[in-house]
Amino acid sequence: MPLSKAALWARFQQTYTEFPAAGLALDLSRVDFPDGFLSTMETPLKQAFAAMEALEKGAIANPDEQRMVGHYWLRAPALAPTPALRTEIEQTVEAVKAFAADVHAGIVAGQGGTFTEVLVIGIGGSALGPQFVANALGQPTTDRLTPHFFDNTDPDGLDRVLARLDGRLGRTLCVVISKSGGTPETRNGMLEAAAAYADAGLVFAKHAVAVTGAGSNLDKTAVAEGWLRRFPMWDWVGGRTSVTSAVGLLPAALQGLDIAGILEGARACDAQTRVADLKQNPAAQLALAWYFLGEGRGSKDMVVLPYKDRLELFSRYLQQLVMESLGKELDLDGRVVNQGLAVYGNKGSTDQHAYVQQLREGVLNFFAVFIEVLSDRNGSGIEVEPGVTSGDYLSGFFLGTRDALYEKGRQSLTITVDRVTGQTVGALIALFERAVGLYASLVRINAYHQPGVEAGKKAASVVLALQRKAVDRLKHDTATAYTAGDLAAALGTPDAAEALFKILSHLAANGRITRTGGAGVATQFRG
Amino acid sequence: MPLSKAALWARFQQTYTEFPAAGLALDLSRVDFPDGFLSTMETPLKQAFAAMEALEKGAIANPDEQRMVGHYWLRAPALAPTPALRTEIEQTVEAVKAFAADVHAGIVAGQGGTFTEVLVIGIGGSALGPQFVANALGQPTTDRLTPHFFDNTDPDGLDRVLARLDGRLGRTLCVVISKSGGTPETRNGMLEAAAAYADAGLVFAKHAVAVTGAGSNLDKTAVAEGWLRRFPMWDWVGGRTSVTSAVGLLPAALQGLDIAGILEGARACDAQTRVADLKQNPAAQLALAWYFLGEGRGSKDMVVLPYKDRLELFSRYLQQLVMESLGKELDLDGRVVNQGLAVYGNKGSTDQHAYVQQLREGVLNFFAVFIEVLSDRNGSGIEVEPGVTSGDYLSGFFLGTRDALYEKGRQSLTITVDRVTGQTVGALIALFERAVGLYASLVRINAYHQPGVEAGKKAASVVLALQRKAVDRLKHDTATAYTAGDLAAALGTPDAAEALFKILSHLAANGRITRTGGAGVATQFRG
Repeated sequence: MPLSKAALWARFQQTYTEFPAAGLALDLSRVDFPDGFLSTMETPLKQAFAAMEALEKGAIANPDEQRMVGHYWLRAPALAPTPALRTEIEQTVEAVKAFAADVHAGIVAGQGGTFTEVLVIGIGGSALGPQFVANALGQPTTDRLTPHFFDNTDPDGLDRVLARLDGRLGRTLCVVISKSGGTPETRNGMLEAAAAYADAGLVFAKHAVAVTGAGSNLDKTAVAEGWLRRFPMWDWVGGRTSVTSAVGLLPAALQGLDIAGILEGARACDAQTRVADLKQNPAAQLALAWYFLGEGRGSKDMVVLPYKDRLELFSRYLQQLVMESLGKELDLDGRVVNQGLAVYGNKGSTDQHAYVQQLREGVLNFFAVFIEVLSDRNGSGIEVEPGVTSGDYLSGFFLGTRDALYEKGRQSLTITVDRVTGQTVGALIALFERAVGLYASLVRINAYHQPGVEAGKKAASVVLALQRKAVDRLKHDTATAYTAGDLAAALGTPDAAEALFKILSHLAANGRITRTGGAGVATQFRG
Repeated sequence: MPLSKAALWARFQQTYTEFPAAGLALDLSRVDFPDGFLSTMETPLKQAFAAMEALEKGAIANPDEQRMVGHYWLRAPALAPTPALRTEIEQTVEAVKAFAADVHAGIVAGQGGTFTEVLVIGIGGSALGPQFVANALGQPTTDRLTPHFFDNTDPDGLDRVLARLDGRLGRTLCVVISKSGGTPETRNGMLEAAAAYADAGLVFAKHAVAVTGAGSNLDKTAVAEGWLRRFPMWDWVGGRTSVTSAVGLLPAALQGLDIAGILEGARACDAQTRVADLKQNPAAQLALAWYFLGEGRGSKDMVVLPYKDRLELFSRYLQQLVMESLGKELDLDGRVVNQGLAVYGNKGSTDQHAYVQQLREGVLNFFAVFIEVLSDRNGSGIEVEPGVTSGDYLSGFFLGTRDALYEKGRQSLTITVDRVTGQTVGALIALFERAVGLYASLVRINAYHQPGVEAGKKAASVVLALQRKAVDRLKHDTATAYTAGDLAAALGTPDAAEALFKILSHLAANGRITRTGGAGVATQFRG
């Protein structure tokens, strides 16, 4: 039964906490924790704090890959387990700043002149962080370079980005980001970009920078071709927690954003969320709320609704951070648990007009995380009614929706920040990183590996190998028209008939083979 | 137990259906319908077809509002229940085309010259459709006008769009879209835009067009101020199904997109999905798959993964169409059912790097809808390996992921289209509209009202009224510093203490009142 307004005010006074050092506040008043819940969680939470402490000291937390997990060191290099690591982190930040300054000053320039555009080529952790930061902190009138992204291997999508850069490639800096240096989408994007530069009579290498692991294929290419610069990625930084490494800092610095602020905000929030005391630790509060609301097994989706356009991409960023970290088949003891926490959302009040109808009345399969930003705009604005601004409406819609959901038993948390700055962005990132780590301990899973993503990649290479065989056959036997079933039989791989149907349909739609007749699964193709 | 490859090929041959007239194919081979399921659904499906037929003939399908539901007539005006409606629809399409032609020709121009930009001001159904279409069909090199959107009441978000238009407002056409003419976010956006025009020494009315219901407040404003043009919205078109009305067609026509193709694709798909035979009806197949996969109560989320950058906004469009239509508390008999179908997703293969880990291994709380686009790009491209293109990788990742999920018992549907054109976009929209309508019949809910969205709006106006009282008090008693609790007591509304705390914090963060001391809930404020 939802509480009365008076009871909510009483609970708000107890459960709303400001964390001024981290620049945020957390309100748990719309979470109906039962009596005694927090005390039953004391022991597991203590263990989670201990696990996190070991992690930060350099324990191997990714046993699959025998790796440390050190994204916290990126903003507090003094915590790195060795002086060498500390120096590397510090030098990389300095190198990023110095390189961005050289680019802005035109000391490092393209064949067409001073760089005005930056094309970031990356996917997953190498795109979501940079995109979130670019959108959260960018400003068209003051950005030093305008950011663009290749974040997929869709040829038409790549062409469309290149169309926007038409005539400006000589002033476009390419930042190719791949930790392993072997991500196919990123490799493809790099090759497509290089071809576009060549078409424009330009040398790609004179416009290219790599962010990758030392010695990776990408690193070797950058060395061999004499790219402008290389920045390191370390095996102790996971892709989804790489935004405070060169992966996120370099694009942001090039755009002219406040990377010192991002690091400072993350560092401050790390310090606050390191405190082994629930009352003082917003990440622990968040993790316990997830645990209670999702019954410790992700039984509810997390709908993230920032009431601020600049934070619109935060839920996409969190989809990766949360779902890739927590979506695990096995727990630490190898038992099948199928854990996870699904995340979606865009921004309020926009999303109210899309699906608050369902949130309020429909399937109760979610809880909401509201993000409230107190400051409305830089500079002055108009009143839309006497004494009322557009921002008052935004604030009113947030409060109204929070109430309208709670009245119907839909629970929520609210994170409040003053304004969207580098510090805020750093703090929000660090807050959720730590909450994910603590929650993973509570449900006893490894948050730092991703064994499930390999299967799709392997299956994709099987498809590409099959395509090669199919094309080979069709090109050497142009007299015969094959159905997918015929070709599967001819290749001695009857199980591949369906895959061949899809492959042949795709090749034919692109004019690489010919559809000669039939329909549906009986369509015939010829080389 | 997932099927073997051989069994899957057999099932694929039975359940993969091409619908050439609608320009799409649907593959249900990764849905594990139990034997007999389809025959048990025959009677309810027959009823759903009948309900849809009555709807299309003009039955009152939105009894709350005593309205017909006629979005199908928009692309087949001959089906409209009266000749007057038919004429209105046809004339509106012609008026949209003629107006766009006049704009492109410079016959209708801004105070700064021929229009080069269009700023669409709308939210919900008045933004999601136009945004989806603009992104799906736009091309930077050939767009006649560049689209921009005000889709929220975030002052900073509005400022950022205006910053992009800096110096070009005189060549910017504003399309203000609000069916009711009273949506506060849209009204605020209009006022903010008008203020920006005034600041630039320009007259907003000379750059403004309205799409709204005849006689609405917006309509009256447009008449009184002498706006360039007004286009009608009808009470028989819901916001979430308005994309083939002037709401979607006008922005698209101004951008130079193929609106005839959109209408044609939707019309063709409507014709295909009107057939009262499951085998021949992809919308009915989709609706039955939702019913089975979500156990008739939305027990699983629908993850929409188009493998094409241009379709990235489709899932946001579908969030509204599906969740606002199906997320209902009561069924047609007034019983509490809390129905719905949650939707999220962005695009493949990008999202694979974000959360396929969880989809494959984590909580089994979803099914996937893949959208496959066979054609890779316009014009020629490079090979990234001998005989292999970026598009082959995209295709390979789609097939690989579909398999990787199915191996783990994660079911999916696949919709295949040849390429992203006006026709395709129209067909996809119509396909899901009809599937929503049929599914709503199956679960016996009204898909055409949205009673749950009012509560948040009402709560918001309560907040704004409270703000006025609070400011009034503080400004008339500047000598006293109030905590939220003090002010609530002083205003005689003790239940409003929490809301006042939020309101005062927001006002103080924007310099409209002053924080004078204290912290957290005990913070003191002064006028």
